[in-house]
Amino acid sequence: MYEDTTARLLIRCADRPGIVASVSNFLYNHGANITALDQHSTDPEDGTFFLRLEFQTPHLDLPRPVLERSFATAVADRYDMEWRISYASERKKMALMVSKYDHALLELLWRSTRGELPVEVTMVISNHPDLKAAVENFGISYHHVPVTKANKPEAEAQALDLLDGQADLIVLARYMQILTDDFVRRYPNCIINIHHSFLPAFIGADPYRRAYERGVKLIGATAHYVTADLDEGPIIEQDVIRVSHRQPVPVLKELGADIERTVLARAVRWHLEDRIIVHGNKTVVFV
Amino acid sequence: MYEDTTARLLIRCADRPGIVASVSNFLYNHGANITALDQHSTDPEDGTFFLRLEFQTPHLDLPRPVLERSFATAVADRYDMEWRISYASERKKMALMVSKYDHALLELLWRSTRGELPVEVTMVISNHPDLKAAVENFGISYHHVPVTKANKPEAEAQALDLLDGQADLIVLARYMQILTDDFVRRYPNCIINIHHSFLPAFIGADPYRRAYERGVKLIGATAHYVTADLDEGPIIEQDVIRVSHRQPVPVLKELGADIERTVLARAVRWHLEDRIIVHGNKTVVFV
Amino acid sequence: MYEDTTARLLIRCADRPGIVASVSNFLYNHGANITALDQHSTDPEDGTFFLRLEFQTPHLDLPRPVLERSFATAVADRYDMEWRISYASERKKMALMVSKYDHALLELLWRSTRGELPVEVTMVISNHPDLKAAVENFGISYHHVPVTKANKPEAEAQALDLLDGQADLIVLARYMQILTDDFVRRYPNCIINIHHSFLPAFIGADPYRRAYERGVKLIGATAHYVTADLDEGPIIEQDVIRVSHRQPVPVLKELGADIERTVLARAVRWHLEDRIIVHGNKTVVFV
Amino acid sequence: MYEDTTARLLIRCADRPGIVASVSNFLYNHGANITALDQHSTDPEDGTFFLRLEFQTPHLDLPRPVLERSFATAVADRYDMEWRISYASERKKMALMVSKYDHALLELLWRSTRGELPVEVTMVISNHPDLKAAVENFGISYHHVPVTKANKPEAEAQALDLLDGQADLIVLARYMQILTDDFVRRYPNCIINIHHSFLPAFIGADPYRRAYERGVKLIGATAHYVTADLDEGPIIEQDVIRVSHRQPVPVLKELGADIERTVLARAVRWHLEDRIIVHGNKTVVFV
Repeated sequence: MYEDTTARLLIRCADRPGIVASVSNFLYNHGANITALDQHSTDPEDGTFFLRLEFQTPHLDLPRPVLERSFATAVADRYDMEWRISYASERKKMALMVSKYDHALLELLWRSTRGELPVEVTMVISNHPDLKAAVENFGISYHHVPVTKANKPEAEAQALDLLDGQADLIVLARYMQILTDDFVRRYPNCIINIHHSFLPAFIGADPYRRAYERGVKLIGATAHYVTADLDEGPIIEQDVIRVSHRQPVPVLKELGADIERTVLARAVRWHLEDRIIVHGNKTVVFV
Repeated sequence: MYEDTTARLLIRCADRPGIVASVSNFLYNHGANITALDQHSTDPEDGTFFLRLEFQTPHLDLPRPVLERSFATAVADRYDMEWRISYASERKKMALMVSKYDHALLELLWRSTRGELPVEVTMVISNHPDLKAAVENFGISYHHVPVTKANKPEAEAQALDLLDGQADLIVLARYMQILTDDFVRRYPNCIINIHHSFLPAFIGADPYRRAYERGVKLIGATAHYVTADLDEGPIIEQDVIRVSHRQPVPVLKELGADIERTVLARAVRWHLEDRIIVHGNKTVVFV
Repeated sequence: MYEDTTARLLIRCADRPGIVASVSNFLYNHGANITALDQHSTDPEDGTFFLRLEFQTPHLDLPRPVLERSFATAVADRYDMEWRISYASERKKMALMVSKYDHALLELLWRSTRGELPVEVTMVISNHPDLKAAVENFGISYHHVPVTKANKPEAEAQALDLLDGQADLIVLARYMQILTDDFVRRYPNCIINIHHSFLPAFIGADPYRRAYERGVKLIGATAHYVTADLDEGPIIEQDVIRVSHRQPVPVLKELGADIERTVLARAVRWHLEDRIIVHGNKTVVFV
Repeated sequence: MYEDTTARLLIRCADRPGIVASVSNFLYNHGANITALDQHSTDPEDGTFFLRLEFQTPHLDLPRPVLERSFATAVADRYDMEWRISYASERKKMALMVSKYDHALLELLWRSTRGELPVEVTMVISNHPDLKAAVENFGISYHHVPVTKANKPEAEAQALDLLDGQADLIVLARYMQILTDDFVRRYPNCIINIHHSFLPAFIGADPYRRAYERGVKLIGATAHYVTADLDEGPIIEQDVIRVSHRQPVPVLKELGADIERTVLARAVRWHLEDRIIVHGNKTVVFV
């Protein structure tokens, strides 16, 4: 989908006149051809400004590191920007963590294998051995790291060792252990989780049964970045599916798994394509 | 849509073998032609059974009241059924209560006028005078019943007087006053309310602003029967619409109004067509 | 999802009063407990009547073959019914035919493996060798039956030999060869195909490019039974997904593959659960 | 929704490096603050470039006509751009043409009255007298211009006289007469039509009946600009709704009317907000 010549620039800063002109001038003057540009401002007077820009690199007049240093000096510092440039030719590394449910995991492995996701899958880590064969069929290494109440620090340390340098993105594809704050802080806005969502919410055990008993007409899923607040991080994507009294609890769970697959695949794709900017507890997703 | 010859039988009882046979035999033997039949059982072994059945009345061998008494004796009592028969030729009376927002109200008035809803609109009651002209344009009487902290009992008494005998269904089409338990108990499973719904829920003031600030990707609406528990009654219908960071709060409110219109219109239609059976705090909707 | 004790009765006949009573009486008298019943009539006066009924078999007073013969004599013949009874304990056999695209095939294999589809997958037949390993990973046999202009009759004969007795359902999961009328007539209403659908239609080569060039806002998929009229058989299921100018042709194709997976999986499930009755060139799907 | 200080610049030209830089520089140098920017390129190498840009006008250093002349000289001519600037303070004028169905018409009148559409409704023209009272209730003038085979040229001339200077947008809100090419050419990309859409298409008479008889599972609507090719102009928006065998033809028509209302309202809004750029027979819609 993406040429290896594509680069993406993401910017967040206080909104002020002239930002687009400055950025686009800089790139033009250095031989970059802008092929996509999205911007958002929470308020033109006093708001926060977000920019996503795709440009083509073949005619750049500077090597990448020099271009980036030059951008910092000439543009970013002036506007006090948070920014980053990523290059499609440098594929992101994705590690997957999973427990026993395979639907979210397999969806991502399939899409990666087919080339639908611009990613290198580096490993699967699981606190259970169950999915080892299914994962190894894809030629991906499977690390069984059991987690108990007693060994949790050691287990997380082992996982962090495995992940070190191997994960630009960690996806919790139905990983049923809660990560510690320490773990989460190492990967800010780099861990994506998926969970079910209902209207109204059913917090606690057996939500599908309670949704059934309450007669809800929609069940859904939410993908979000993991923060120290469990299940309360910035929302990346949500979707729902219609249900009725006709679906018993096991069918609701199957439909829930389907919608989780879809929502997670979209969220992961957007992360890999550098379409998401996090701002406080919300996301701006440029699609 | 409905012939005046259509009747509908709704049944709820403990599930036991033979119910469908008994009911359909009875109707067949009395000249009723069954033209639609939906059933649901929460569990065939020990569950609750729900039945909705449409039949045609032209060849009935008994007058309606006699048929109903006979059904009670011959079938309903044996299975300890809660049941009712309604006739499409006897249009239900609908009263609307509204405050200042007109979107839900006008949607229902327009559909009623076009003959899309099988209903007689008997009145609009409002605690504000604002929508008087808009309502009277439809040839519907508009009763302004102001509500203050001081006069609430008198105001409700006045509304109940107006409604007496004139409301098989009361729709709160964005009526911003909370009805007392006394009021609600007079119309069990006969008052429909519509309100916004979010994932996650934003309880309290200014939910659209908070949804915006949280970056939700879906906003929705829920129609439900009003019970003593505010906004917690049996859910009739729900739907959502996609949003993104691009929609500012006023646009979110407009989209919310759109989805409220749609969801409320469906819920009202299903009530009028006798498609809804309430069971505890949930509904079975046969559509 | 389904107990092995569930049986399903499907009926089509001219609509007349008393059918539901006769059928439900018969079953009740023989110890069958009806746990689901859906009916449809194209017109109560002069139309065609459709019935789907689920019942539980543990307390039947007759062996299955005797019950069926008795039903034929006592009920079906009287109303000139087309009918069949199937038993959840007798899993249907499904054969898959595929060319090179794997998305539809893998979706079905994965759901079958997980137990989401009540089916026994008997084989995959392909005119290409490409997907052999992927299929054999699931423990399913893969038959490579090349098709050329010259060998088409022999190839179809070979496929028919393989299928003989092994296919209650044949799914064309992106099988790019046109089956002959002879082949199709052997499996009436037992071959399901999936193809893309657009508004407006783009008949002929490269439809995704033409949809892109026309700026369509929705792309979709249709699952249908295969008849002698290519792509014109009875529609089982359809769905669409929103697109915009932002999606280039390769992304449209990916989204098209996603919607094909979803639509085909639903159609196959409904066939396996005996939810579909074909009537002329349309289907009645009881979900 | 829109401040009166907002202006919008739409551009279409051959894609070349430097366009965004040139445009944003120009605006920045003249005191315009860019508050939204969307771009699209059909191909970075050799494609067509589309730009929509919102900017705030309070600090412009030039009067509007001078700014526009300056933009033409300094930027647009250099890139051979087709372009226009519009100002939210100058509300567009919308005329509506209708026959007898009121659903699409009333939806637009409501939304205009509520301030949801940034528009001045100048008139309704109809070839029938039926909707006169409904329209005049909104304080809008209603012109009955009967059309027969014999008087078609005179009738169109009369309509064109009424429209002269009063229509930046003409909406055919279920206007059942075919406009002549002459008429259409006077308002290029300024006439929006709405019609039903099906998968597959049912061209000719009574499409809802044929959709019912074919058992389609989706019915939809398409809004498009009117060109000399009837119903074949650039598509602006499309949507669908699920249906089943349960909906008889009259209900399908009601659901079709609902989806037409929704789709038309979106298309009109996007036109009024200058979100649509037409390119050949397709649209780029920046939402």
